[in-house]
Amino acid sequence: MSPDDDGFARRAAQIRERVAQQGFMALVGATLDELAPGRCTIWVGRRPELLQQYGMFHCGVTAFLVDNGTTIAAATAVAPGQATLTAEYKINLLSPATGARLVCCCRVIKPGRMLTVLAADVVSVADDGTETHTATALATIAGVDAARLRPPG
Amino acid sequence: MSPDDDGFARRAAQIRERVAQQGFMALVGATLDELAPGRCTIWVGRRPELLQQYGMFHCGVTAFLVDNGTTIAAATAVAPGQATLTAEYKINLLSPATGARLVCCCRVIKPGRMLTVLAADVVSVADDGTETHTATALATIAGVDAARLRPPG
Amino acid sequence: MSPDDDGFARRAAQIRERVAQQGFMALVGATLDELAPGRCTIWVGRRPELLQQYGMFHCGVTAFLVDNGTTIAAATAVAPGQATLTAEYKINLLSPATGARLVCCCRVIKPGRMLTVLAADVVSVADDGTETHTATALATIAGVDAARLRPPG
Amino acid sequence: MSPDDDGFARRAAQIRERVAQQGFMALVGATLDELAPGRCTIWVGRRPELLQQYGMFHCGVTAFLVDNGTTIAAATAVAPGQATLTAEYKINLLSPATGARLVCCCRVIKPGRMLTVLAADVVSVADDGTETHTATALATIAGVDAARLRPPG
Repeated sequence: MSPDDDGFARRAAQIRERVAQQGFMALVGATLDELAPGRCTIWVGRRPELLQQYGMFHCGVTAFLVDNGTTIAAATAVAPGQATLTAEYKINLLSPATGARLVCCCRVIKPGRMLTVLAADVVSVADDGTETHTATALATIAGVDAARLRPPG
Repeated sequence: MSPDDDGFARRAAQIRERVAQQGFMALVGATLDELAPGRCTIWVGRRPELLQQYGMFHCGVTAFLVDNGTTIAAATAVAPGQATLTAEYKINLLSPATGARLVCCCRVIKPGRMLTVLAADVVSVADDGTETHTATALATIAGVDAARLRPPG
Repeated sequence: MSPDDDGFARRAAQIRERVAQQGFMALVGATLDELAPGRCTIWVGRRPELLQQYGMFHCGVTAFLVDNGTTIAAATAVAPGQATLTAEYKINLLSPATGARLVCCCRVIKPGRMLTVLAADVVSVADDGTETHTATALATIAGVDAARLRPPG
Repeated sequence: MSPDDDGFARRAAQIRERVAQQGFMALVGATLDELAPGRCTIWVGRRPELLQQYGMFHCGVTAFLVDNGTTIAAATAVAPGQATLTAEYKINLLSPATGARLVCCCRVIKPGRMLTVLAADVVSVADDGTETHTATALATIAGVDAARLRPPG
């Protein structure tokens, strides 16, 4: 393993640890899957409590995946000692999310000292593996000194 | 009560009934408060499972409130027989949401036969009542024939 | 030439004719280059009157290319008899646009009866051919009955 | 005149001077009107070269007003020595802009050391003074060290 690989492995472990501390991640029941420099995949399986009244995944679940996934992917790209905070994002909903799983793939488009810009695409995967592109998004994530953020108490 | 008031009361009851069927609304524990022609207020109280790792409300919770609130406010403005589906929205996160409650106020900016445009503002309310403006958003909601949407089964 | 090719050629000619009637297109001096089903390329060369005070292309020029390009690409995808109007878009500026040409490539992500969603990417091309990714965008274009839109007078 | 007023007057004069150096501002023929702490108004009169093929103001003109206006309003709010660059914005087009003037009012929603968030509203004003709300927007403007930006040559 090269020093770079080793460095990223440590970074990835820290990111996964922080994500594991998110109460909302646990409530939604999402899984952080692939985590690589500049990208990540985060997904959630279909459960009645994630749906809206027409039996589709609630758009709020899609928004959560985009929000969290872009912040996580940005965290792989910022300088050590920086935390990532969502500055803004925009989501287009493309198709109803009626599948068994909702999978969100995020990738850095442009890293930056202050701001990282990312794209995210969400696909709904049916039981038979059929994929439907259900949402696309652009996000701007700010890198801030991690020491400025700390848990309360 | 004028016929118009009566008409809106029926519409409002239908909207509240549909929102009550949303699994994700119950999971998050949000409350649909004010519901008036062209606007609504939706909020959620602080619970550990709605937070991220730094003790603030997860931005995904903010996104859910904006997503659901704008769809609900649009539902008050579309023609009878139309359902509302999120086409897209954009959120700017302004300040950390560290308060006891997260309150999202949504209002129609421009109603339309096909598309309704709305604004949403989210404030974090501390125990002492202090309000912090934590997010602002613009959303585009599509009006579609409700008969085209139906629960599965 | 197949009937389909012939049909698209007619559609493309109509689109080019309408674009040629835009006063602002002429003022900016932009060129509609490639026009294919679901995509187009539109560009402009560097001139002092397209710059801001630091010698870069004005972001307003980028916005115009995105705005017009996405509307044009959407026009290739809507049903005959439909005109395309911008509903909304969102642009992220990624890098200063200091090159000799600003080239905007637009592509349909999701066509629709009512709404077409598109992505656009803008690159600044230097004299030596070096490309810099200067902007990325998502746009929602509405298809409306062309008969409802007509020139004044 | 208080010292603060005097300070803002100097700042405003610098901003107006920089805007006067923008080639694209002159090409479009826009006027920077009101300039106050945290807000500005920028407008343009109807001319054939600002229209699209249906006789309305081109949406690219609206985008330019939003882009420039938000950057200018942000410049009134950042620390001395900081220049403002557009990070991103999102525009919703609400109604056709068929009037005699297109007026864009921009205001800071949330100032910040790194990022300033603004809202913009565009109205089309007819010859008889009737106003139509034609666009609404949210923008994120980055404050950067002005010394890092300099004209070429």
